[in-house]
Amino acid sequence: MAEVVRNKRVVLRNYVTGFPKESDMEILEGTITLKVPEGSKEVLLKNLYLSCDPFMRNLMNKPQGTDTSSGLTYTSGSAIGGFGVSKVIDSGSPDYKYGDLVWGLTKWEEYSLVPSSQIISKIQHTDGVPLSYYTGILGMPGVTAYAGLFEVGSLQKGERVFVSAASGAVGQLVGQFAKLTDCYVVGSAGSKDKVDLLKNKFGFDEGFNYKEEPDLNAALKRYFPEGIDVYFENVGGKTLDAVLLNMRVQGRIPACGMISQYNLTQPEGVTNLANIVYKKIRMQGFHFFDYVNLYPKFLEFVLSHLKEGKIVYVEDIAEGLENGPAALVGLFSGRNFGKQVLLVAPE
Amino acid sequence: MAEVVRNKRVVLRNYVTGFPKESDMEILEGTITLKVPEGSKEVLLKNLYLSCDPFMRNLMNKPQGTDTSSGLTYTSGSAIGGFGVSKVIDSGSPDYKYGDLVWGLTKWEEYSLVPSSQIISKIQHTDGVPLSYYTGILGMPGVTAYAGLFEVGSLQKGERVFVSAASGAVGQLVGQFAKLTDCYVVGSAGSKDKVDLLKNKFGFDEGFNYKEEPDLNAALKRYFPEGIDVYFENVGGKTLDAVLLNMRVQGRIPACGMISQYNLTQPEGVTNLANIVYKKIRMQGFHFFDYVNLYPKFLEFVLSHLKEGKIVYVEDIAEGLENGPAALVGLFSGRNFGKQVLLVAPE
Repeated sequence: MAEVVRNKRVVLRNYVTGFPKESDMEILEGTITLKVPEGSKEVLLKNLYLSCDPFMRNLMNKPQGTDTSSGLTYTSGSAIGGFGVSKVIDSGSPDYKYGDLVWGLTKWEEYSLVPSSQIISKIQHTDGVPLSYYTGILGMPGVTAYAGLFEVGSLQKGERVFVSAASGAVGQLVGQFAKLTDCYVVGSAGSKDKVDLLKNKFGFDEGFNYKEEPDLNAALKRYFPEGIDVYFENVGGKTLDAVLLNMRVQGRIPACGMISQYNLTQPEGVTNLANIVYKKIRMQGFHFFDYVNLYPKFLEFVLSHLKEGKIVYVEDIAEGLENGPAALVGLFSGRNFGKQVLLVAPE
Repeated sequence: MAEVVRNKRVVLRNYVTGFPKESDMEILEGTITLKVPEGSKEVLLKNLYLSCDPFMRNLMNKPQGTDTSSGLTYTSGSAIGGFGVSKVIDSGSPDYKYGDLVWGLTKWEEYSLVPSSQIISKIQHTDGVPLSYYTGILGMPGVTAYAGLFEVGSLQKGERVFVSAASGAVGQLVGQFAKLTDCYVVGSAGSKDKVDLLKNKFGFDEGFNYKEEPDLNAALKRYFPEGIDVYFENVGGKTLDAVLLNMRVQGRIPACGMISQYNLTQPEGVTNLANIVYKKIRMQGFHFFDYVNLYPKFLEFVLSHLKEGKIVYVEDIAEGLENGPAALVGLFSGRNFGKQVLLVAPE
């Protein structure tokens, strides 16, 4: 007889309008049988680390048919989902077996039964890198930074790069990857401590606290007297508007996210778009899932730099599913310091 | 002794703020010697047809260092310039000789002395096509439509295409080129007569008068129940905002112009940009000058279709330099019906 155990879950109470609150979610307890049902090809995962990512906010909206490319949808009354690192407990798929460590899409619960197609990769390298890194620098945010800069943004050696939300999961990597490409890199973040992190830990050339800049256009002119070649877009709104005034001719804007807009029922108006025409700017939205094929190449690139100490990575780890809603909601007020992760079980 | 003749010119009085008025320009008479100065490599042109183009509005602003890629700048007190069809009267360049018909950048005056680098091309084909067409379908607007759709917009057979300012110089060609690519094509324009032109003359599938649509989002949903693959952007502002709600995943927005914004001291806010992220949209500004190399290939394509009657072209021809300011200003209220041209001299 298969073991039946408790399964705590973070459930979405109702679809969200405006800023998400902890009370939009609740912790429910159920049970789960630790065995894949007879004949099923699914995989039973024990979730170890869950990733808090801004895109999850959009899944909390009442669905309107916009493609998320992930296949993820949230249903009110069900557990939310996202990226995570998990251990295989049982498998109906020949590709996975008990004990395998994997990362991919899972649910916010202690154990999840998922289609094997939701697993992005087995985790082979664990020497000297924390498992949690596979929710960040060695996972989706890493590939996102890499693909956004080099594939979508066509970054060239020596260019001038600006990144917003620069101390976050993706931003801190964007800056460091650009520095490895001999670029001039400036980041914006929402507190003095985060800006110090950019300059003193991640090696950015400059950084500023956008909350203390009364005129973002003036701030960008100060740091980019000759303009910006590549703006890695994480926030949208007022920052994007100021950036458009400071882009260089044929500049590129890989658009990864617009976190400042996700919680507004009436988004901010961006007024300087004519610069896209004047300066022949290319602005392009992209999703991780279109670049999964880069993962092996990316992993080789980033592991070698990690081992040589040429890249550092900062995580903010909350513990226990009970603290998941607060950790997730904190992303939108910038409470996290570095990549926000939720530890569910250490192994 | 070289002949000295009268040279009437359209001069910019002062840099313009807001909507341009006829009185922002004045007609001045001077004289010119019909000979290239000794030792100069310039070319002396007799201007036949001058092109009224929306980008000229931006040159009327006080210069702020934004690249126009054309090398054109306007100085208050001097003749304005733009694209035109001209006859070579004298040449210091070995590439041109008396009597050659050419098109390229010239000044709004009867005769102009220009660097030969401003000439885009000699005109070889005049059988069955009016010379004025080299300000439009066979000139800059033609290449712009072609490059924007196929190079920047990566248009594929069978896609759903929306174009704004659709009866204008570029728009009417965008629609027809897209129809030749077996696409579904809808255009917007600013009067019932223009919309009739789209449907009855240019072969668009549908068209609508944006001034009579209280809800542009609803209008686009009506014509594109499955969304838009390629939006050829000529106007910006409210139209762009509604389009963003109706783009398909991986849609493209070649951004040719944003005429609705050029005269606003405070441009309209575009609020739906997060769709660029959600739907992985690529929006890209572009200028004719980056695609000049396509001209021979383009000319072959368009001449063959013109001769077979598979493309038609509508011009609105004003006569005489005195009527130039009104013709140019009329672009911004949509007074023109088809491509606005100014006839200076028939030969």
